[in-house]
Amino acid sequence: MRKTRQDGISIQQVAGNGLLDRRALLSRGVMLAGAMGAGAAGSLTGAAAEPLAEAPWSLAPGGGVAPYQHASRFEEKVVRTVDNPNNEPSGTRARTPHHLLRGMITPNGLHFTIMHSGIPDIDPAQHKLVIHGMVRQPLVFTPETLSRYSMVSRIGFTECGGNSAPLFSNEPIQADVQALHGLSSCAEWTGVPLAALLDEAGVDPKAKWIIAEGADATHLSRSVPLAKVMDDAMVAMYQNGERIQPGQGYPMRLWLPGYEGNMNVKFLRRVQVTDKPVMTYFESKIYSDPLPDGKATQFYFVQEVKSFITSPSPGLTLKEPGVYEISGVAYAGTGRIAKVMVSADGGKSWAESALQEPRLPKAFTRFCMPWRWDGGPVVLQSRAWDEAGNVQPTREQFVALRGQTTKPANVRGFPGHHFNAITSWAVDPKGEVKHVYA
Amino acid sequence: MRKTRQDGISIQQVAGNGLLDRRALLSRGVMLAGAMGAGAAGSLTGAAAEPLAEAPWSLAPGGGVAPYQHASRFEEKVVRTVDNPNNEPSGTRARTPHHLLRGMITPNGLHFTIMHSGIPDIDPAQHKLVIHGMVRQPLVFTPETLSRYSMVSRIGFTECGGNSAPLFSNEPIQADVQALHGLSSCAEWTGVPLAALLDEAGVDPKAKWIIAEGADATHLSRSVPLAKVMDDAMVAMYQNGERIQPGQGYPMRLWLPGYEGNMNVKFLRRVQVTDKPVMTYFESKIYSDPLPDGKATQFYFVQEVKSFITSPSPGLTLKEPGVYEISGVAYAGTGRIAKVMVSADGGKSWAESALQEPRLPKAFTRFCMPWRWDGGPVVLQSRAWDEAGNVQPTREQFVALRGQTTKPANVRGFPGHHFNAITSWAVDPKGEVKHVYA
Repeated sequence: MRKTRQDGISIQQVAGNGLLDRRALLSRGVMLAGAMGAGAAGSLTGAAAEPLAEAPWSLAPGGGVAPYQHASRFEEKVVRTVDNPNNEPSGTRARTPHHLLRGMITPNGLHFTIMHSGIPDIDPAQHKLVIHGMVRQPLVFTPETLSRYSMVSRIGFTECGGNSAPLFSNEPIQADVQALHGLSSCAEWTGVPLAALLDEAGVDPKAKWIIAEGADATHLSRSVPLAKVMDDAMVAMYQNGERIQPGQGYPMRLWLPGYEGNMNVKFLRRVQVTDKPVMTYFESKIYSDPLPDGKATQFYFVQEVKSFITSPSPGLTLKEPGVYEISGVAYAGTGRIAKVMVSADGGKSWAESALQEPRLPKAFTRFCMPWRWDGGPVVLQSRAWDEAGNVQPTREQFVALRGQTTKPANVRGFPGHHFNAITSWAVDPKGEVKHVYA
Repeated sequence: MRKTRQDGISIQQVAGNGLLDRRALLSRGVMLAGAMGAGAAGSLTGAAAEPLAEAPWSLAPGGGVAPYQHASRFEEKVVRTVDNPNNEPSGTRARTPHHLLRGMITPNGLHFTIMHSGIPDIDPAQHKLVIHGMVRQPLVFTPETLSRYSMVSRIGFTECGGNSAPLFSNEPIQADVQALHGLSSCAEWTGVPLAALLDEAGVDPKAKWIIAEGADATHLSRSVPLAKVMDDAMVAMYQNGERIQPGQGYPMRLWLPGYEGNMNVKFLRRVQVTDKPVMTYFESKIYSDPLPDGKATQFYFVQEVKSFITSPSPGLTLKEPGVYEISGVAYAGTGRIAKVMVSADGGKSWAESALQEPRLPKAFTRFCMPWRWDGGPVVLQSRAWDEAGNVQPTREQFVALRGQTTKPANVRGFPGHHFNAITSWAVDPKGEVKHVYA
């Protein structure tokens, strides 16, 4: 490994094109960003008074405090992209702006949603959840009675099975990380374990599945294996501390850690216990993907190990050579993230990134890596492993297994689901970032 | 221990007045809430069609999706209480509605704030942070240049040193948990370790303190021991994933895990490295409390181990006898919560609650406990321990050490800080909950 020296302190380059040792983040006295020059972190000498000149907001009282606070007006661009702003009868996707966020929690205002028939305005006092089918005793719950049960809290991601579908295109679509990967978010969910409710209803030993149904006009319904339900399914009522948002299924949703987003039925009104799945529209037509060999996937539930770099990413232009942080999110429906490797030379060499704690199973894990950009062309990639040893596939491996399409480039309507291969961002000498296949 | 039997399954009562074994939450087949009766979880037999009757929102498409989503209109009461709604020149407190929240994360809209001169409308393009004083090389940062540094994320609480001050009253003030304990919240903060910036500036070995100053009109400033700064201080730029809210110091704040809220200087514009504290207004007058022996506290920084029950709590009336969940938050500026004990008989008997994971140091830990209320009068209490063995004091212990006051009852202006003793809620036979001293 080549060593660079900066201001008398060595920083080890651990892989090609300027990737620096992640441990430099933790050492004392390593001047990672000192190289940024006076334009970035300049000397105060001789100009000490200037930076502390009083701005208008330092000279007069500020504004009042609202009962529910909102972001600064200078952050008004930090919103979800909504692909059906006029609420035409065609379904709506709202995508999380990953390139503008940091950490593992997605704030509730920016959590992705997909609505098939708009957001219902449900009065919780009139909403009921029915548990019936192969049970000893059918049960009915209101949000209020459900609130008396013991609740559990868990931080975890939810991802649409169609997230990243534009990467099924055989040409890289020029879009940002919000458009490409924005149908994935992470929150703290609090609710009642569905297993507790099913235990109370008394499940027939011959039962194998549940069918969950929502109260919106689509009455979206999905079959879920009973084993998953008894493991970690939750009837979620709270999201990041407050009641779940209308776009996430207020007043209650099914939440299945690590499973395909569509199965996490919102506005949950019915859980029917059965001995077989019912092959609803969403599981027979939508989420059964044709494969290159002529067969099709069926009941492909788990969102597999995945990662993508959120900064730098398309739209976040690098202004000048120097030290930056490569930052992104990794997650796996199979468990906890064990490792994320980063490459700045399109996969020729790799170095291990730093992972933020807590690393929780089936939750976003933020990874980061110090990087010195010398101004030349580079290709940034990330690749994640889970604790069971499952590894995010390369694009080549993924396409061999799942295929790709020549369908004209747009960010909607690709026929594939569960895309989890490596994403590549190319940085050109102007500092602009583009989506490429590498 | 007495055992009760319900529907053929034993649930162990582990302490007086109906506290149930926390492990019942985790066992299969224990019908905790089956005792709630038909009004709560009734039989569907003979009425299967009724609960699934189609509500209006199930029969027509719903509303559009907003770029930034908000809570349901049915949750509009879930807001902070603002004690200065007309923004008079007297400071403003906005308190977190703990009784309406669950989990460990406080959503950004509901994070508490105290503003001394209103919320400044800071243009981040014009904001600068200066590091100077006993350093080799003074430095200036903008939010943009700071964003190029490697960031860390951490979930943790922030608590005003004056939180719970009404409990210094010698008579229990009738107010809810929001009014009594609402100046404490928990979020995921992301930013640059201040140690990294100070390393780059080169701290003089003789330095012992920093002085942090904000850019709002108050120019709030506080002295912070350098050892704390080098341990875990952060210049925070993100809160629960998105840029920090104006009420929390947009575009950047000092965040000192576990330290008195006032020291977490918002709108941070200056860090001066010094060899002694400067005894600012907030540390000499406000946060130096007189003690019963005539002395006064000085530099009492750590928010010590504490807990309170959020449900049941004043305003959340129990409608009928039956099984409920006792739920609350515990935290310690000294580290991780190890244990929370709960009593339903005013401290005569105690049982250990279940703690939600992840249990993080200097962060909220949600505790919960199944409880069967028999309809009689009870007094609910919680008591927390941290991993170092520090224990939340009883009221009697606390008053002996810190005193109490006969100042007329109101929820503002009590002279004491750092109240962390046990809180007691009395439930009367009507199910109403009151604040008592027990």
